[in-house]
Amino acid sequence: MALAQRLSRLGTETAFAVALAAADWKSKGNSVYPFHLGDINIPTAPHIIEAMNRAIADGRTGYCPGAGIPELRAALADDIGSRRDMSIDPAQVVVMTGGKPVITKFLQAVMDPGRSVLYPNPGFPIYESQIEYLGGEPAPYRYVPAEHGFAIDLDHLRSQITDATVAIIYNDLQNPISAESTAAEREAIARIAIEHDLWVLSDEAYFEMRYEGTSQSIAALPGMAERTVILYTFSKKFAMTGSRLGCAVAPPEVATVMSTMNTNDESCTTHYVQWAGITALEGTQQPVADMLDTLRERRDIACALVNDTPGMSVAVPRSTFYLFPDVTEALPRVGASDVSEFAEMALHETGVSFCTRRHFGRPQPGEQRDYIRLAYSGIDGDQITEGLTKLQHWVASA
Amino acid sequence: MALAQRLSRLGTETAFAVALAAADWKSKGNSVYPFHLGDINIPTAPHIIEAMNRAIADGRTGYCPGAGIPELRAALADDIGSRRDMSIDPAQVVVMTGGKPVITKFLQAVMDPGRSVLYPNPGFPIYESQIEYLGGEPAPYRYVPAEHGFAIDLDHLRSQITDATVAIIYNDLQNPISAESTAAEREAIARIAIEHDLWVLSDEAYFEMRYEGTSQSIAALPGMAERTVILYTFSKKFAMTGSRLGCAVAPPEVATVMSTMNTNDESCTTHYVQWAGITALEGTQQPVADMLDTLRERRDIACALVNDTPGMSVAVPRSTFYLFPDVTEALPRVGASDVSEFAEMALHETGVSFCTRRHFGRPQPGEQRDYIRLAYSGIDGDQITEGLTKLQHWVASA
Repeated sequence: MALAQRLSRLGTETAFAVALAAADWKSKGNSVYPFHLGDINIPTAPHIIEAMNRAIADGRTGYCPGAGIPELRAALADDIGSRRDMSIDPAQVVVMTGGKPVITKFLQAVMDPGRSVLYPNPGFPIYESQIEYLGGEPAPYRYVPAEHGFAIDLDHLRSQITDATVAIIYNDLQNPISAESTAAEREAIARIAIEHDLWVLSDEAYFEMRYEGTSQSIAALPGMAERTVILYTFSKKFAMTGSRLGCAVAPPEVATVMSTMNTNDESCTTHYVQWAGITALEGTQQPVADMLDTLRERRDIACALVNDTPGMSVAVPRSTFYLFPDVTEALPRVGASDVSEFAEMALHETGVSFCTRRHFGRPQPGEQRDYIRLAYSGIDGDQITEGLTKLQHWVASA
Repeated sequence: MALAQRLSRLGTETAFAVALAAADWKSKGNSVYPFHLGDINIPTAPHIIEAMNRAIADGRTGYCPGAGIPELRAALADDIGSRRDMSIDPAQVVVMTGGKPVITKFLQAVMDPGRSVLYPNPGFPIYESQIEYLGGEPAPYRYVPAEHGFAIDLDHLRSQITDATVAIIYNDLQNPISAESTAAEREAIARIAIEHDLWVLSDEAYFEMRYEGTSQSIAALPGMAERTVILYTFSKKFAMTGSRLGCAVAPPEVATVMSTMNTNDESCTTHYVQWAGITALEGTQQPVADMLDTLRERRDIACALVNDTPGMSVAVPRSTFYLFPDVTEALPRVGASDVSEFAEMALHETGVSFCTRRHFGRPQPGEQRDYIRLAYSGIDGDQITEGLTKLQHWVASA
């Protein structure tokens, strides 16, 4: 009896090791400031929970269609379409157990083994994991520092395209680096996709997690709807990470196969949670605004302290709830030989716990700057102040 | 842009076409008796829902570990182990979004492309679909009529084993045919697995859905725990089909990779539903007993009427909520050329809607008897009486 060979290509989110180290340090009686979590320490709004209980009382506890209940698919088509100035048919919407399943189901639908897929690196680590797991060739593209954060290195991206390339994963409002495309950059990506006849996965998990400006979807650009799958999730906007509710918006032929994959993989997404999702979309949006106000305050506190720390700097992102500070000059100050050691030292010297660039895909050749990722979604403002002030003093006094 | 070739191998549950035909017939003003549903028209018990709401009030709305919350894994290890006289470590328990994900994750973990897996046919159609989708060679084994229902054709099963065979899927208390192994049959399957060094998926979705006797797990036989993955689900026992909660109990190295698959595929199973699961396991079991009483009554009504219908016969199953009547002699009576036409005629002549043998895997060479599947979990006793009486009169008067 042996395990299957494909398992040797299965990656994971290595950030869990950071969470374990933080929990271990805390269990020894130390203060820990959790900047490693991509979770939200804000409760799901009560009217959403009430809608779920009404659904249960109405008997919505049995199976439902693999593609989701028609009422939620219609509500999603309307909401997602109207915010992107697109016309979306409910038949294009496939409800999923969160946004993450859209990644593997997109790749299963469009990528044969041996084919290549472009994806952002640093980026959400599951892109790289699933491309390789499914037998594809990973083609990472990189970012370069820009005036207000980071920009996609389009020349590098183009250099990664071969005859085997079938798709590009694009994550505007990017996790972990909080990059946001200019209109020109977004249009350039669209032109590349059309020119090379590529499928596009547009990961829009943070589309509405923004503090100023308006998000734009690459799917709304001419010639893009028919080649683009949008990843949508309730997790962030509605503080529903643990509810596991999201969807794909896909060209009809892709939506059909994704629905069949759902029937094979998990029958359906939790039935009554889907009714809660309708209320999340159609009910009061005040909790969303309140949450964004809270997150904006945290962002401002965190950015100020990071930029006040010697050897660390970060642009103020307009979206997501992540900072990706350049810490290159801080490492030698504290005597850290690399960014992993810096993170370990920071935990033990200050209690500040965070992921580094290395948790977001394999580092690419030629990288010369060091970065850490601070998530401020799971830690209150006063704890941000306390933790990052300790970090600042530690680095400054070194 | 093309879709991936693997999609040509993806099957599905074709029973949805039966549901559509039934809904269509009903929408035209006809009475429909839904015997096609494997769902349960009994609500989830209130104390389970209350536990879910307590968890939400306690803030259990964020992410949780991919393998499930430790408290549920411990409760499952205890409950599943004690009912099978096995010692199960919580680390062997991987919580899933229902029982179904255990099928694809088991196959991904142990079956390389080109390898062969034994599976029951007729059987749950996703076995066949996922073996083929993942590039394996399907090796169906068949059943033969026996004194109290059906028995596995062990000679046929052995004839399907080749050097490429790596696993056997075993579904005692079988969907759709309600077969149940004798102790000798279960031991014979275990001996075959050990002799040929096979992994075993023991689909125990109906382990506690029984009206008399006690279920036994093949995993509890000597030499089996280290090669067997148990599929467990809350769906049937606790009337929680729409909640999507189940687990795998697996040898440690398989549990580890299944947990990593969860992290890749859907992050975690809905957090607060897992707390409801603990209460389902540890709280009052009276609703389970009440549900089984209800289902037993339905079984007895349905069996009597089927056996009173000319050309139809069925053994009274001691478990599951399915009947798999032999209807071979009924077909010519009503002028049906095959079992699919028989089902279509029955719907239009009597309103009785059901699946047939053809919805449970591709028919095997040499099959000479025709069968339908009647599920009595989603239809009340008085409707069973009304519907099957109409069916009886239709066949008898033909």
